[in-house]
Amino acid sequence: MTPGKASVEIVAIGTEILLGHLIDTNSAHVARVLADSGIDVYAKHAVGDNAARLEAMLRDVLERADGAITTGGLGPTVDDLTKEAVAAAIGATLELDEPSLRAIEERLRSFGRTGPLSDNNRRQAMLPAGCVVLRNPHGTAPGFVAVRADGKFVACMPGVPREMKPMLAEHLVPWIVNTFGIHDAIYTRTIHTVGISESLLDSKIETLFRTLENPKIAMLAHDGKVDVKIMAKAGDRAGADALIAPVEAEIRERIGAGIFGVDDETLESALLRRLEAARLTLGTAESLTGGAVADALVRVPGASSVFRGAIVAYDNAVKTSLLGVDEALLRERGAVSEEVAIAMARGACERIGTDLALATTGIAGPTGATPGKPVGLVYVALATRHGEAIARRLTLPGNRDDVRRRSTLGALDVLWRYLDDATVAMQPAARG
Amino acid sequence: MTPGKASVEIVAIGTEILLGHLIDTNSAHVARVLADSGIDVYAKHAVGDNAARLEAMLRDVLERADGAITTGGLGPTVDDLTKEAVAAAIGATLELDEPSLRAIEERLRSFGRTGPLSDNNRRQAMLPAGCVVLRNPHGTAPGFVAVRADGKFVACMPGVPREMKPMLAEHLVPWIVNTFGIHDAIYTRTIHTVGISESLLDSKIETLFRTLENPKIAMLAHDGKVDVKIMAKAGDRAGADALIAPVEAEIRERIGAGIFGVDDETLESALLRRLEAARLTLGTAESLTGGAVADALVRVPGASSVFRGAIVAYDNAVKTSLLGVDEALLRERGAVSEEVAIAMARGACERIGTDLALATTGIAGPTGATPGKPVGLVYVALATRHGEAIARRLTLPGNRDDVRRRSTLGALDVLWRYLDDATVAMQPAARG
Repeated sequence: MTPGKASVEIVAIGTEILLGHLIDTNSAHVARVLADSGIDVYAKHAVGDNAARLEAMLRDVLERADGAITTGGLGPTVDDLTKEAVAAAIGATLELDEPSLRAIEERLRSFGRTGPLSDNNRRQAMLPAGCVVLRNPHGTAPGFVAVRADGKFVACMPGVPREMKPMLAEHLVPWIVNTFGIHDAIYTRTIHTVGISESLLDSKIETLFRTLENPKIAMLAHDGKVDVKIMAKAGDRAGADALIAPVEAEIRERIGAGIFGVDDETLESALLRRLEAARLTLGTAESLTGGAVADALVRVPGASSVFRGAIVAYDNAVKTSLLGVDEALLRERGAVSEEVAIAMARGACERIGTDLALATTGIAGPTGATPGKPVGLVYVALATRHGEAIARRLTLPGNRDDVRRRSTLGALDVLWRYLDDATVAMQPAARG
Repeated sequence: MTPGKASVEIVAIGTEILLGHLIDTNSAHVARVLADSGIDVYAKHAVGDNAARLEAMLRDVLERADGAITTGGLGPTVDDLTKEAVAAAIGATLELDEPSLRAIEERLRSFGRTGPLSDNNRRQAMLPAGCVVLRNPHGTAPGFVAVRADGKFVACMPGVPREMKPMLAEHLVPWIVNTFGIHDAIYTRTIHTVGISESLLDSKIETLFRTLENPKIAMLAHDGKVDVKIMAKAGDRAGADALIAPVEAEIRERIGAGIFGVDDETLESALLRRLEAARLTLGTAESLTGGAVADALVRVPGASSVFRGAIVAYDNAVKTSLLGVDEALLRERGAVSEEVAIAMARGACERIGTDLALATTGIAGPTGATPGKPVGLVYVALATRHGEAIARRLTLPGNRDDVRRRSTLGALDVLWRYLDDATVAMQPAARG
């Protein structure tokens, strides 16, 4: 045990997780939270509901690290196994914890259950003697931290994410931080960009990567968007903010356009916030995205103040009947063309009755390609109620899901650029 | 080493995976494939890009199991670390593998790269002496199996899923099966149901759970659908099929309605297949789902032969202007009502010009609830081109995302029931 430092390994318990029938997202969450709290994570593991293997694994972990943190294996049918394995690994016995028993009784009463507790529920209150109990306001099984004679510990939490996450943040992390006297945690600020490639972004900020020590910066690309993460090591949030602020200002200066939000903000929520502030309404006309652009916007709570509706015109006849796209234009240019994308956007503005409308048309594959129009060719367009319009041609890699997802992002990006940059050149209404 | 049996542990390599910035889906895939191939999986692990910790972990794994299988850590910047750690753990040295070097050269030439190989690319051909090379037709880094003097092995594969998956299935699993003389694999058949609760399904087939040994059966609930998995241990697919067929027949008999497909089939693909066979076209009218029903259908390749389009009427004025829902009806019954759901479905049939249309309207939350109409109240409806209609009232738990996802499933389920059961009672057209 080094003062001011703690090292842990994370163990996910459950045969369904071990054999890949359930994807374990708990371990990634626990690792992120611990690392951000200044605790070293050495390794992650998964074992089945097998007491002997779990006990051996916990003993091995405590050879290497200060503590083992488990999730899962506390359900009523298997919890004996897990807790007995933990008790054996640290040389403790299981005892009835009266406060946990009363908490379980109260919880069941609050659901209208009366009568004596079942054996299963009683067993959930059996915990290693002398352990620190981690209360579980969101479920019956309590968590706990059991400390071995040499100061090494095993902490066990339930596997249900909505029970585990608050227990980790509110009880377990503070316990580790206090017990090991950890002063500095990692505080982050994430800057979200869209429409800038990872390599371009890298070239703009790479000298910062090389020179900065605290805060550090990292880039993370996902789904066509790139985040810049600023990570400061500090004693508290205020101290971290003082370190982060000048670096954030420098990064914003270097990147310029393309930053749409920070931290929890999504591109969709940033768009809706901007449109609401400008009192503009929005609709969509979608072909290959099939409603995915509308769905992404409606996912944001409160979307109804801005988003009015969508016309999904998957069939060409529907492009004409519901969006008013000229049949001759469809014949001459084809459904996948800049002209049709713009006509769809203008049609949506007019028919749905919005200030702005986005449109998508393209070839998602695997079939549908024609000479000169390969799978992945997509046009996205934006039109205003006055008939001004802008279109962008995209050639997208990947399979059907990839092309459709990137088309959705491409449409949202066109709208973002329009709102973010007053100099975007639009085609005048006359041309349409 | 027990003849006919092999035990392995899986190790994911990479600091991004260890710290939870990337979710590791490789390990779950590898575990499923190995378990289905009759190979015992004891544990899964993740370590960072740290040679000392990786070497120690591999040594520990080989104390317990016959082999360690790693994914990741073979990228050009970190592969030296990984391969040197593996070589050290099994007591081998790294040597240049000429065939791998030529394969890398050929691959780069096929991309138009000329001139001498970079040091990074050369190093990708350095492999533990005497190893079995696992060819990688989808990337530059080859995989390999290195065997220790005592017969224990370490197998390393790249972390990119599209490179790893075929290498596992076509090269690594056959190598393990042959080397350890494994005769029986697990063959599965998955029956998908919708609209039947897990507990009802359990009560229908629970005597099978208790009595069957080979094949075994298991239930897996996800997203409102429940799967019944039949798992047979056999020497080949034909032998497994002979074991599975009578059990599948028995399960189908017991479950009755609600089975929509098997194995890779989704509810959406099953619906589109049925509609195509019946030469019926489909559209949707969506409020709270905001295009998610249309999006789910368009995700299926070939959807265009059945699915025509959608009208997302998020705003009430759009329900009237684009779907023809009577303003008085909206005022009297409210947008979230059976009558409006049916009017939306009928409007979609007529305006989009389809044989059938689905509609959704409801309160997704977090705001929008009124007295008598709580968050989670949803109506889904189905109408035919002749004006017949059916509606279903749902009260859905969970947050905004949950309610919207379950509403989408609820709409698809109404359609499935209609197609699957000729006795579904529809409201006649006159009533509307």
